[in-house]
Amino acid sequence: MTASDRLDATFLALADPTRRAILARLALGDASVAELAHPFAISQPAVSKHLKMLERAGLISVGHDAQRRPRRIEAKPLAAAEAWIERCRETWEASYRRLDHLLDELQRKPVGTRRAGRELKR
Amino acid sequence: MTASDRLDATFLALADPTRRAILARLALGDASVAELAHPFAISQPAVSKHLKMLERAGLISVGHDAQRRPRRIEAKPLAAAEAWIERCRETWEASYRRLDHLLDELQRKPVGTRRAGRELKR
Repeated sequence: MTASDRLDATFLALADPTRRAILARLALGDASVAELAHPFAISQPAVSKHLKMLERAGLISVGHDAQRRPRRIEAKPLAAAEAWIERCRETWEASYRRLDHLLDELQRKPVGTRRAGRELKR
Repeated sequence: MTASDRLDATFLALADPTRRAILARLALGDASVAELAHPFAISQPAVSKHLKMLERAGLISVGHDAQRRPRRIEAKPLAAAEAWIERCRETWEASYRRLDHLLDELQRKPVGTRRAGRELKR
């Protein structure tokens, strides 16, 4: 699985309110399928289906207790998804600041030299 | 559209490498469909389909130039998605620190008082 495939799987897993609620619950501590199914008022098979998708994305793992099989949140894929969004936002903010700065420059210049400024902006 | 619906749409839109690449390109500045199609070596209709999904999620908007119809990145849904992941991560980190602290406490206690510590951990 490439890093891009992993991001696909992570974002797809996050694109559902029940799966996000399961993750938010697991962020508080490990829980078994029965413990996860209870507050959501959905069947255990339905929860299991969501858990499989979260597992495939590497967002959760299964603990060692053979009876309870507690699910545990895994921080790495969440961190990778957050990092992707952060990079995109930082790039956008830097571009925005650059454009803002250029517009400021243009407004400060006398009319005769504005054309050069507009070329710069492109 | 509720905040949860918007998160669904945002994460679903992000679950594709071409759509992420389009967003990364738009983070550098506005671009028309033709300008976006060129570097990806995919057809303009294929790009248009991806753009529609990004638009539906509110991740991009269409600029005022009627001829060029430049696409522009919209920061708000990205920020909301980032905030959701951050909250989940912070909750998890706090739980982890709490558990770590409790384990430390337990290791420091003499054997006779360990039971109470274990009860606390639950």
